[in-house]
Amino acid sequence: MNVEFINPFLSSLMNVLETMAMTKLTPGKPSLKRDQVAKGDVSGLIGMAGPQTKGSLSVTFEAKLALSIMERMLGDRPESINEEVTDMVGEITNMVTGGAKNILSDKGYDFDMATPMIVSGKDHTINHKCDSATLIVPFTSENGKAYIEVSFDVLNEE
Amino acid sequence: MNVEFINPFLSSLMNVLETMAMTKLTPGKPSLKRDQVAKGDVSGLIGMAGPQTKGSLSVTFEAKLALSIMERMLGDRPESINEEVTDMVGEITNMVTGGAKNILSDKGYDFDMATPMIVSGKDHTINHKCDSATLIVPFTSENGKAYIEVSFDVLNEE
Repeated sequence: MNVEFINPFLSSLMNVLETMAMTKLTPGKPSLKRDQVAKGDVSGLIGMAGPQTKGSLSVTFEAKLALSIMERMLGDRPESINEEVTDMVGEITNMVTGGAKNILSDKGYDFDMATPMIVSGKDHTINHKCDSATLIVPFTSENGKAYIEVSFDVLNEE
Repeated sequence: MNVEFINPFLSSLMNVLETMAMTKLTPGKPSLKRDQVAKGDVSGLIGMAGPQTKGSLSVTFEAKLALSIMERMLGDRPESINEEVTDMVGEITNMVTGGAKNILSDKGYDFDMATPMIVSGKDHTINHKCDSATLIVPFTSENGKAYIEVSFDVLNEE
């Protein structure tokens, strides 16, 4: 996977959280998935598919960060990962992917977005099964950790 | 969501497991997601996207069922959900969706498949965020439970 594919997702995530929830994420060192496992409590996942490209994205949050984002967006802090929180994580996933889709489309990589899925469960991990490598970038914030994982295959043009 | 969209996924899952792993799944009563939560230990998730349709599929297994499927396919039973197991769950997810894609394409519903993702984590749950309802079907087998969840939106033709 070309690193140029991941930057639009990173900048999109940072933008969305700063704009919507006044939450500043600081990116850590990107790595290939084998080096590192993202463990988190709530994740938004989405598939991307087109004739020329296919892939998947996940954004994983520690529970305390997801709850703090909710608090900053809505003023109330839920006690646990409830349906409002999973709705919000789904929205963030859609917005991040939509933002990256626009940038990648300008570069000639077009795809359609599937509908997002949200996984809840303490310390779950995600494996992206693709032909190329999965890139993972950890983020820190004052309220907890997040991870973004992207796999993005460009199919052979024949 | 129209029920006719879920049947191809159900029959495809049952076929794949019976053919590949001599595992017979007995389907329970389908329901809308709100009535029921699928909890499991390992899940395969995939996105579907096309100009006319978009959606998502997940297949969730109890750990003991996933391990028994591995044993029947390969002769060895891993001790836990390792990378071999997640690879297998990814393969099953691809095959189930590919089988359903062929059937749905014959009915005029075309989509591209994203790459699968596999979630590992005890008792995780999945929310499919789509415009229409998510259908969930529980399965029983002699080695444990499985669930399939499908959301499939047909976009307005304009």
